[in-house]
Amino acid sequence: MTNRPLILVTNDDGINAHGLKALVEVARELGDLIVVAPDSPQSGQGHAITIKDPLRLKKVDIYDGIEAYECSGTPVDCVKLAKHVLLHQRAADLCVSGINHGSNASINILYSGTMSAAMEASLEGINSIGFSLLDYEWGADFDSCKPFLKELMQYVLKNGLGNCKLLNVNIPSVSSHELKGFKICRQAEARWIEKYQEGIDPRGQKYYWLTGEFTNNDKGEDTDVWALEHNYISVVPSGHDLTRYDALDALKDLEQKAGVPIS
Amino acid sequence: MTNRPLILVTNDDGINAHGLKALVEVARELGDLIVVAPDSPQSGQGHAITIKDPLRLKKVDIYDGIEAYECSGTPVDCVKLAKHVLLHQRAADLCVSGINHGSNASINILYSGTMSAAMEASLEGINSIGFSLLDYEWGADFDSCKPFLKELMQYVLKNGLGNCKLLNVNIPSVSSHELKGFKICRQAEARWIEKYQEGIDPRGQKYYWLTGEFTNNDKGEDTDVWALEHNYISVVPSGHDLTRYDALDALKDLEQKAGVPIS
Repeated sequence: MTNRPLILVTNDDGINAHGLKALVEVARELGDLIVVAPDSPQSGQGHAITIKDPLRLKKVDIYDGIEAYECSGTPVDCVKLAKHVLLHQRAADLCVSGINHGSNASINILYSGTMSAAMEASLEGINSIGFSLLDYEWGADFDSCKPFLKELMQYVLKNGLGNCKLLNVNIPSVSSHELKGFKICRQAEARWIEKYQEGIDPRGQKYYWLTGEFTNNDKGEDTDVWALEHNYISVVPSGHDLTRYDALDALKDLEQKAGVPIS
Repeated sequence: MTNRPLILVTNDDGINAHGLKALVEVARELGDLIVVAPDSPQSGQGHAITIKDPLRLKKVDIYDGIEAYECSGTPVDCVKLAKHVLLHQRAADLCVSGINHGSNASINILYSGTMSAAMEASLEGINSIGFSLLDYEWGADFDSCKPFLKELMQYVLKNGLGNCKLLNVNIPSVSSHELKGFKICRQAEARWIEKYQEGIDPRGQKYYWLTGEFTNNDKGEDTDVWALEHNYISVVPSGHDLTRYDALDALKDLEQKAGVPIS
């Protein structure tokens, strides 16, 4: 037992990802860690959970002196298992997820296992941060951003996040002297234009393979995409209440209609 | 070619689910349908997409005179494939997803494949409705709610949804004369208290199997959970912008801190 903060570390690229290693290196300076990550890459898993199958946890000796586990499930499963099985309901002081290999800015937050893991922890009331570097390469440079990551984690450990419990943090892939610091942003209203690579497999069956292009028509200068294009680290305070409060009133006549007998 | 609306129908319980059949029966009275659903149950898949593997589409002859396909991927994959491969970018006039076997009220929207499929269509600008019945049984009574479903689809086809494109609709499992009509709501701030069933498999390996209990501490009478408990059909206008706008200002000092040189 120590007085150091307890930090839960996870990701969606898997227990062996370089981004996770970088995150562990920063976080271990600030607290006691427990690492629980998928045993295989789980990109694009969103907020998926494993219902139909049993899950496995395996203790791994990857980080000297740090308790680490690989999990057979999704990123969200990792967080649930950490909370309920490994921490026996004890709440971590902070959850950090990532560093993801690739952007989770804008609507990518919906598809991202990295962000869904962090969101799952935030649902438990834990201050949570998902980190993503805009570089899909396995050997991406995760060092340049480390001082910023440390600063942000320290800030959150010290100040908390109020009643917002989740930050979506994306980092441009530039050298440390080009990084301009943090920019607090809203999520850009961008989208993916999908395409499917079509082909015939060795058994003669047609297949479709997802590809696509991220397209931002949101010209606002207060968005995460804008910030990243201008070498800022984007920080989007994020939540889990999807209600469109602005649309509640317009639908009220539907209530009245249902008041009359229907055929 | 007809002048009837084009309605995309999908779900997460799979192409053979009774809830999908009920939804098709209602929707076919209102428009021309294209049905694309997973070839196996995909509950809890959230907004997962298939990146690493190719996808398959197979035409199936389930509904007399209706074009229907089973897809090897997730519910979100179904919608993407429908849009880009089957409809050749033509936008449907409406997307309906479900009827899900079980509740997707409150934060269940995050885990739900049914709602994620509808949300994916909404991201494409299509008015979309996810329907869920609060009965997990395969043989649940999907008939009682049909007149309400028809009324709501007609309403949306006629009036649109403004700039909100997504409704999360949950239906209490009661007889038709007990159903009180629609209630426009916000998403309740509830959560799951998870437990894991622990056991040893036939190979001697420990496993954890997810279970849990839905717990609502949100006492508001304007929530979906409240409406359902009072025999209303809950209708939550929903979105995909997770930004916590109320938290933007409080974080601004982080921007200033990052302006000073870091060690």
